[in-house]
Amino acid sequence: MSEFFQTRLSEWKEQIDGGLKAIIAGLNYCDDFKNVLEYALFPGGKRLRPILMLEFHNLFELPDEYALNYACGIEILHTYSLIHDDMPCMDNDDMRRGKPTVHKMFGEAKALLAGDALLDLANRILNAPMPNGGVGPFCGFSSLVGDNGLINGQYIDLFGDIASVDELLDMYKQKTGALIKLACNGGYVLGNRRKIRLECDGISGKCNIINEDRSNDRHIINGMLTESFAQAFGQAFQLYDDISEYISGEKQGERSILKFLDLDDAKKLLNEKLNNSAKALDTIGGDNRFLHEFIEKFVIV
Amino acid sequence: MSEFFQTRLSEWKEQIDGGLKAIIAGLNYCDDFKNVLEYALFPGGKRLRPILMLEFHNLFELPDEYALNYACGIEILHTYSLIHDDMPCMDNDDMRRGKPTVHKMFGEAKALLAGDALLDLANRILNAPMPNGGVGPFCGFSSLVGDNGLINGQYIDLFGDIASVDELLDMYKQKTGALIKLACNGGYVLGNRRKIRLECDGISGKCNIINEDRSNDRHIINGMLTESFAQAFGQAFQLYDDISEYISGEKQGERSILKFLDLDDAKKLLNEKLNNSAKALDTIGGDNRFLHEFIEKFVIV
Repeated sequence: MSEFFQTRLSEWKEQIDGGLKAIIAGLNYCDDFKNVLEYALFPGGKRLRPILMLEFHNLFELPDEYALNYACGIEILHTYSLIHDDMPCMDNDDMRRGKPTVHKMFGEAKALLAGDALLDLANRILNAPMPNGGVGPFCGFSSLVGDNGLINGQYIDLFGDIASVDELLDMYKQKTGALIKLACNGGYVLGNRRKIRLECDGISGKCNIINEDRSNDRHIINGMLTESFAQAFGQAFQLYDDISEYISGEKQGERSILKFLDLDDAKKLLNEKLNNSAKALDTIGGDNRFLHEFIEKFVIV
Repeated sequence: MSEFFQTRLSEWKEQIDGGLKAIIAGLNYCDDFKNVLEYALFPGGKRLRPILMLEFHNLFELPDEYALNYACGIEILHTYSLIHDDMPCMDNDDMRRGKPTVHKMFGEAKALLAGDALLDLANRILNAPMPNGGVGPFCGFSSLVGDNGLINGQYIDLFGDIASVDELLDMYKQKTGALIKLACNGGYVLGNRRKIRLECDGISGKCNIINEDRSNDRHIINGMLTESFAQAFGQAFQLYDDISEYISGEKQGERSILKFLDLDDAKKLLNEKLNNSAKALDTIGGDNRFLHEFIEKFVIV
């Protein structure tokens, strides 16, 4: 890890942790329940999703306090999903990041409510309008949490038939990829907010990107490249997990790319996805050194 | 029940049911999961919250398709809370509206995911911007779901000490009253959208009502009256439940006004709250005949 990378990573984490602390402190819940929420949020993992958002923002413009607030919303959203997924009726995990899961520590009722509270809070933050009062950068994100993302992916993982690599990758795209897409896209929209704006249909909730700079369609192309990155990296992220688990000899989950491919082909697929991510990054340009080093960490040779 | 009331009630229910059916049909979840969501939503109960919203809207202006969509969002929000509250780790209820609860019918994993899916979906609908693109009429609503409402109320109900009438009423205000407030306020904002607008702080999510009609502050006063109605009626609604349970000899819940007051005083308190609701309605004026008849149903003599 380069010193540059290490320093920037620590700075992001410090900012995100500070933001999260302030958000929880500002809530009206009793201290007892705030403790449960803090337990779930800290010390936290890699803070991968909010960092992706801030880095994508940074490719276009320096992130400000609004961006940081939204980034915290993404981490809060991710944390809700961990709490509920860990519960006995779902994946039934006792440990998370080296400590007891929320339901193990505080009981299932508090875990269920904590997940609900964080989902609600994430919605509050991610739906906040743009600084200028316009439709927020995460407009339409609830579909990436719901029927085109996280919840649908978890449902398919638990109850669906997955009989091919494509079906597995599609499930990963929803269960894991959707939040990564949300993070990258949100960073892109916010970082380009002086050049594009979102338009949202009040009934379907569907959003369109409108180019405000008619002389230049580069801003729209960058949005497509951001999506390419997110799609490829979202799958790579999950493939990396499967392959690392397999190599380390850990107990493999029900779903793994190694059920369909041998180790060499799985690695090839992973590295192909990472190459696609890197290519999208290069085409966007900007200050992408951190992101390049970031995706290199997922290469398995 | 007057024929007028009966007819209008059926019309609202039909519109709400049709709206809910269309919303679920439009989702990308697999049919299997949509079945779970439909099971939770239909045939449904009194549809009290969406009807309150539509009736409050109607005091000021006739509701349109946007209003109906938001009203469905409120019913979806309410349904999420029923599914999660019924789960074994919470209130552990086997039956709801004369049929097995969602987890009894489909298992806990599907119930947990269905609650999450409906909370997400409600957020999508209730956060949609105004028809003119401005901040939506439910801006700030997530606090009424979270730390100033539903979730906080459920936490206090399960884990808090409640040692006085005031503490009990405060818990009711959050657990039950908040969604009623959300419904009435949303109807008021939407029904006055040509006279007022909402302004939302992008970081705290807090909203302010701005009067667009400087020659007339009546629109702002009507907002305050709507809140008075909602506050009084929200508590009356829960007191009515407690008193009916007591009179019918059903097993009383842990929390009941009858633990603090005798029957006569409890009835007096209920009817006082209903009187306050009626007074607020009279002061607002408009086509309030349905709402008057509606609250009369909660009088216990």
